[in-house]
Amino acid sequence: MRVLVTGAEGLIGTAVRRSLAGRHRLTALTLRREEFPSFVADIGDLESILPAFDGIEAVVHLAASASVGSSWEEVLANNIVGTRNVFEAARLSGVQRVVFASSNHAVGMHEREAAPDAYRADDPLVIGEDVAPRPDSLYGVSKVFGEVLGRYYADVHGLRVVCLRIGAVSRDDDPCAGGQPDRMRVLWLSQRDCAELVDCALTADVRYAIVYGTSDNPRQLFSLRGARELGFRPRDRAPEECP
Amino acid sequence: MRVLVTGAEGLIGTAVRRSLAGRHRLTALTLRREEFPSFVADIGDLESILPAFDGIEAVVHLAASASVGSSWEEVLANNIVGTRNVFEAARLSGVQRVVFASSNHAVGMHEREAAPDAYRADDPLVIGEDVAPRPDSLYGVSKVFGEVLGRYYADVHGLRVVCLRIGAVSRDDDPCAGGQPDRMRVLWLSQRDCAELVDCALTADVRYAIVYGTSDNPRQLFSLRGARELGFRPRDRAPEECP
Repeated sequence: MRVLVTGAEGLIGTAVRRSLAGRHRLTALTLRREEFPSFVADIGDLESILPAFDGIEAVVHLAASASVGSSWEEVLANNIVGTRNVFEAARLSGVQRVVFASSNHAVGMHEREAAPDAYRADDPLVIGEDVAPRPDSLYGVSKVFGEVLGRYYADVHGLRVVCLRIGAVSRDDDPCAGGQPDRMRVLWLSQRDCAELVDCALTADVRYAIVYGTSDNPRQLFSLRGARELGFRPRDRAPEECP
Repeated sequence: MRVLVTGAEGLIGTAVRRSLAGRHRLTALTLRREEFPSFVADIGDLESILPAFDGIEAVVHLAASASVGSSWEEVLANNIVGTRNVFEAARLSGVQRVVFASSNHAVGMHEREAAPDAYRADDPLVIGEDVAPRPDSLYGVSKVFGEVLGRYYADVHGLRVVCLRIGAVSRDDDPCAGGQPDRMRVLWLSQRDCAELVDCALTADVRYAIVYGTSDNPRQLFSLRGARELGFRPRDRAPEECP
């Protein structure tokens, strides 16, 4: 499949490029010139990104202000206008499929209200794919926007759209690192599991779906049912406890 | 209550001004100078609207590109950026409550998939307040955005927010006029019922709610349960059949 990856220079973009290069014909879209071949353009400018969509069958849309602390100005430009431009470029170019990198922060208030008890191994709460959107941040608001925009492009324009509410992917790929170890062991998504989930979303036979993505961690706070229906079989697992 | 009404010059704004003037101390915010007293500013500019929020207890946010056929550029400027500015101005000014004019088009695909059968008096389908967002238009996408942004301001900043998924309010207030009479009899919300619903939303004791607004029509496709829980008792009713 000829796949365009936006934000290919980022943490998840790098994992996707490394894992999926042998399975699909990847084209990278990046904001700046990188050490790997890429089409350089800003997703804030629809005209400038359009040529990158020529002949593409599927888009993996990762480019975004990716911090939960992003300002309104940042999410407006990159996550709202940018995401609309990516969907619109896909529609204009006849691209049939978009995989959209959403986030657990789209429903982060459900988690926040239940934390920290919900991180315990014996806590029964599971946050399903069908809970009402409850973002914990403007970043989360922008991710809900992308999910709903994707729903519109699927329903009205016939695209296939899969939204991945990605857990916690980290640069060191270590489920015990970082400042919130209890949360991290629950939310952890290893880099290779993340790339695998993206590949499942690229090939699944669905019109529209929202799924969560975490590794096969001992405590599953976010349902993996939807991801498993896409064929996702996580191979990594956070430990029961961190040292 | 000291209430600021944005878009006070519009169809619903006019109904709200006429019905609620005796119950609250209303201030109008309008884009241009009108025949009634108003604070003139563009909701696209946060700084310019801020003074209108001084001393206000509640905002009724009606200003928007209100056509279901609005372009992306229109909904981006007026419904996305403008709505964010209204919520942010409310937060910055210590306003405790926002009533947001959402729309049935936020979930319009649920209706479209069931139409025209769902307009028949004996059809059992009821679209609940908890269905997944499925906008039928970019206008609908922008209304979901406003609902979700309101949820964020309620959850994170403590505002009280009620989102009204308003049915069909028409200039002539006639449930039998217009090009889609079967739909209109189901979706019709009379102007005085609309103003009443806004008043219920202004005074209800809730942190956050999404409700539908139609009159007491013979066929109820959109649930009125949520609106009734706010105290809404519609007084008008579309006829069983139109001539």
